[in-house]
Amino acid sequence: MQAGPRILITGAAGMIGRKLTAALAADGLGGRPVAALHLVDVVRPEPPESFAGEVAATVADLSDEGVAEALLSGRPDIVFHLAAIVSGEAEADFDKGYRINLDGTRALFEAARRQGGDYRPRIVFSSSIAVFGTPFPEVIPDDYVLSPRTSYGVQKAAGELLLSDYSRRGFIDGVALRLPTVCIRPGRPNLAASGFFSGILREPLNGQRAVLPVSPDVRHWFASPRSAVGFLLHAATLPAERLDKRRCLTMPGFSATVAEQIEALGRVAGADAVALIDHVPDPDIARIVDSWPRAFETPRAVALGFRAETDMDEIVQVYIEDELEGARRS
Amino acid sequence: MQAGPRILITGAAGMIGRKLTAALAADGLGGRPVAALHLVDVVRPEPPESFAGEVAATVADLSDEGVAEALLSGRPDIVFHLAAIVSGEAEADFDKGYRINLDGTRALFEAARRQGGDYRPRIVFSSSIAVFGTPFPEVIPDDYVLSPRTSYGVQKAAGELLLSDYSRRGFIDGVALRLPTVCIRPGRPNLAASGFFSGILREPLNGQRAVLPVSPDVRHWFASPRSAVGFLLHAATLPAERLDKRRCLTMPGFSATVAEQIEALGRVAGADAVALIDHVPDPDIARIVDSWPRAFETPRAVALGFRAETDMDEIVQVYIEDELEGARRS
Repeated sequence: MQAGPRILITGAAGMIGRKLTAALAADGLGGRPVAALHLVDVVRPEPPESFAGEVAATVADLSDEGVAEALLSGRPDIVFHLAAIVSGEAEADFDKGYRINLDGTRALFEAARRQGGDYRPRIVFSSSIAVFGTPFPEVIPDDYVLSPRTSYGVQKAAGELLLSDYSRRGFIDGVALRLPTVCIRPGRPNLAASGFFSGILREPLNGQRAVLPVSPDVRHWFASPRSAVGFLLHAATLPAERLDKRRCLTMPGFSATVAEQIEALGRVAGADAVALIDHVPDPDIARIVDSWPRAFETPRAVALGFRAETDMDEIVQVYIEDELEGARRS
Repeated sequence: MQAGPRILITGAAGMIGRKLTAALAADGLGGRPVAALHLVDVVRPEPPESFAGEVAATVADLSDEGVAEALLSGRPDIVFHLAAIVSGEAEADFDKGYRINLDGTRALFEAARRQGGDYRPRIVFSSSIAVFGTPFPEVIPDDYVLSPRTSYGVQKAAGELLLSDYSRRGFIDGVALRLPTVCIRPGRPNLAASGFFSGILREPLNGQRAVLPVSPDVRHWFASPRSAVGFLLHAATLPAERLDKRRCLTMPGFSATVAEQIEALGRVAGADAVALIDHVPDPDIARIVDSWPRAFETPRAVALGFRAETDMDEIVQVYIEDELEGARRS
């Protein structure tokens, strides 16, 4: 049997990074066990439980001199590049956003190039639907211009351009996935301006009060954490020739208004849960969210086999299965 | 009378830079004489003849440490950022292309930001239709995705993203113009892969033989040097509020096949001129050109008052008026 892949994950301590690590450790990739997992983040990533392969955890900042070269010196077959400063923080700290999100990404691609020889790792880059900005149509097609209205979106869009060029030149074998807003994010709120989309469901499902900072008629594009991990795993094994010349793909998701989110919550958890949501408008968050897309057509990703939830109830149900029932079992 | 603008031009020694300098010196900008012209390039730019304002010429590379800061320390009102490595060279020298075209552009925007206070120069950035790449429709609309298939195109597209973000954040007041292929370029061929589009007209008009490296049915998007300078001047005085949120504009032009270019040459200069063209296919150039767009719809730029030629004969005629008759007069 062929040896399994050696895998590097940046941003491994983040929510998606942890779920991806667990999935790779438990299920392997493309039907093969993973030979080695190298987990990297600015805080120490937890090694997976009961994993038979090699494992290493490194605390490092990809944008620091020499870090990217050191990380790629082991020539991993696959790199999941998830490390990023979130949208709210990139907006608040201009320099840090560019350093981590743009320079860090470029350093990673450049380090792969500097390895030389026939080294050409599959790099799966987590981009975002924040690469799209107003004005845009209500439903955004696959070929729509990237005109981000946040620094975060600009940094991701520039990363996509670099990924395409480094791939075309033969230095890497990249795939960029524009992830929908992940909902319901488990755990504590983070600094992302999009955090409330999860909070208004998660907190009530846990019996806590939640704050809704925008109007209930705000519409947005969602997929569960389980789908997001599925996208990453699928992208890691997708044959390059199937990508044609477009390596940056908008991922499928489900379009819902905040009101529709709350209706789904009501159906699953009852009126008492809905009553836990406090509407406290926040103009700063409303302004950022207003520049974000609402719905997509994603025929390219669907044809390549990417799949997401198809209604809001399913998205709520995934949280209950993966977080609440899972937590009770463990 | 209000003092005229102080203007910095990067890439001032290039063909468009020289024509822009001459136009600003002779005609001013927006009906006002120019108070100061600072010309910068990696080779010494020629100061304009008979110009009443201040003039300075600097030999410098924008991507070198501290150069951008020094250039902006005089706080010019308007910056024309034309400096770039051309497409063929950016493809041949990966590092140099990124250093000059991406890092140099970023250094310029960053230097404007570092000036601080209320300094917010209008920066007119010469982007290119090379930001578009296959697959694309035969006629590309204003909102089409930027998916360049050359490193040059990626560098220009990334520059556009930065320009938009630095403008949105209030650090600069940028406008990016995606220039059509400029035709007929005067003077000697340069390293651009697009050079033959001018060469097959220019050389025969000067009684010289010319090489056509691609098929006559290759279609492309053209404007004269006179139009290109006109775009830059118009962009320099366009009120920011008229740009809405889209500061990166595809410029109008004229779509023609190589065969139609040659027919126009025949109409203007006769069959003897056409007979001077040798068809010598070059697969490398054909491959690059094959990834370039052929025609555009540019309603956004047209609504903002940008104008180009509307047929190929006019494009040939502009060369004769501005270069051959002008040369005879001088």
